[in-house]
Amino acid sequence: MIKQLSIVGVGLIGGSLAQALKKAAYCKKIVGVGRNAERLSAACKAGIIDRGETDFKAGVGEADVILIATPLDTYRDVFTQIKTHARADVVITDAGSAKSCVADDARKVYGRLPENLVPGHPIAGNEKSGFEASTADLYESRRVVLTPSADTSPHAIATVKAMWEAAGACVEITDVEHHDHVLAATSHLPHLLAFGLVDSLARQQDSEELFRFAAGGFRDFTRIAASDPIMWRDICLRNRDSILFALGNYERDLSDLHTAIKDGDGETLVKIFTRAKQARDRFNY
Amino acid sequence: MIKQLSIVGVGLIGGSLAQALKKAAYCKKIVGVGRNAERLSAACKAGIIDRGETDFKAGVGEADVILIATPLDTYRDVFTQIKTHARADVVITDAGSAKSCVADDARKVYGRLPENLVPGHPIAGNEKSGFEASTADLYESRRVVLTPSADTSPHAIATVKAMWEAAGACVEITDVEHHDHVLAATSHLPHLLAFGLVDSLARQQDSEELFRFAAGGFRDFTRIAASDPIMWRDICLRNRDSILFALGNYERDLSDLHTAIKDGDGETLVKIFTRAKQARDRFNY
Repeated sequence: MIKQLSIVGVGLIGGSLAQALKKAAYCKKIVGVGRNAERLSAACKAGIIDRGETDFKAGVGEADVILIATPLDTYRDVFTQIKTHARADVVITDAGSAKSCVADDARKVYGRLPENLVPGHPIAGNEKSGFEASTADLYESRRVVLTPSADTSPHAIATVKAMWEAAGACVEITDVEHHDHVLAATSHLPHLLAFGLVDSLARQQDSEELFRFAAGGFRDFTRIAASDPIMWRDICLRNRDSILFALGNYERDLSDLHTAIKDGDGETLVKIFTRAKQARDRFNY
Repeated sequence: MIKQLSIVGVGLIGGSLAQALKKAAYCKKIVGVGRNAERLSAACKAGIIDRGETDFKAGVGEADVILIATPLDTYRDVFTQIKTHARADVVITDAGSAKSCVADDARKVYGRLPENLVPGHPIAGNEKSGFEASTADLYESRRVVLTPSADTSPHAIATVKAMWEAAGACVEITDVEHHDHVLAATSHLPHLLAFGLVDSLARQQDSEELFRFAAGGFRDFTRIAASDPIMWRDICLRNRDSILFALGNYERDLSDLHTAIKDGDGETLVKIFTRAKQARDRFNY
């Protein structure tokens, strides 16, 4: 049970947590903090948050728990505001898709990694944006990864874990580097490939005709290319090393595939396609 | 209305056409032709075809219309069998994902492009294989592209067009080169990218862990990597030039994206991601 949860950034991710915790009656009060008063007011009217604040002091001053759910590029400013205005015993977590940069930003603002900060990442979401797309069941049975340090307070970890579990999620704890490496390969890289493909086609002269002939496979493959550009710019810039590693690997593998097609090497193609099919069938979501 | 339709290759594509035409009561008799008597017998029992034949003479000898729905690598043999055993006035069509190679194979067997051959491609299907995955509504409101030549008989074109329309599809006529170029970009390339990504991850030491953390975006993005390896080997080898062109373009674009991330060039990233999002939103399937 949380007395006041303040959510900085009431979009798909923050709004969905608010809705899930309201449904579970897990918070006495949920305050949304953001720059746009109109949007906050609309989120209030939609019953997603209890109150909206554009002022950080009013928004986080009384909070017991703060969730940061804004693009990664804003974290340094948000930490500075929280440091200035929040209570010393507040528990802070976030929902960013990369985690080492969160620790870096916190260290820059606090001079050390605060023991009440529990970085987190709900492995959920979709290509939509804004609180209008948020739902109470977004986290139902989904994984939330927390990446505390050795110095993080057990109370803070337990608080954040219990909050996500109240929203229906399964919580796992792992280390920052592992998280960033795994997510670069399984989430950040696919987003880049999809953005890249749609842009590549969109820039061709006959793009209307190309999209007109696109079938179901293309639709599924490119759905994630409708994701928020600013959020993904920040992920690319803030998880740069892991993404460059994953992308470099992939480019090499794609070049092998290119060579096999060029050489008419059917045997290699069947080997690659079969290995992929077996892996995909085995992890049949 | 067709008296006897013979389907060479009763899998997802052939089986779905059979089911759709049965539902529409459009054929007096549907004969399946294949190499595996057991599978044909099972398709009969499932009510998908009326009769199964492993012998081409028995399978296509009395056919009014023949649909070839086998991997592209088999076409030359299939054309040879049809030339030997089918009636001279039979109408022949196919469901191959590449079209210039179909014309090439037909020319090799017949010495010219037969006027009763109407190459076709239903832009439908999914990652599943086999007649067990076939459904009567697979072609409902989906596009079927026919690529006849200037010499193709109008009667043959009308027959094939009416057949697909009876199955619920929208039929379009285009030329072979255009088809192969467009499909390379919107279907063959995405399949390659998905096969490549899943294989790339599957070969990593921690692949179990990688797949365990994969979320919805990854699931959608890689669904097509469960497609049939033999079918896709043949597409890669038989639509090689168009695919190499599309793949080369994409590799260059991906390399630009790589450079932007490496250089921390957020402006270029937002430009690419925004263009992609706008295109994807506009063609919102």
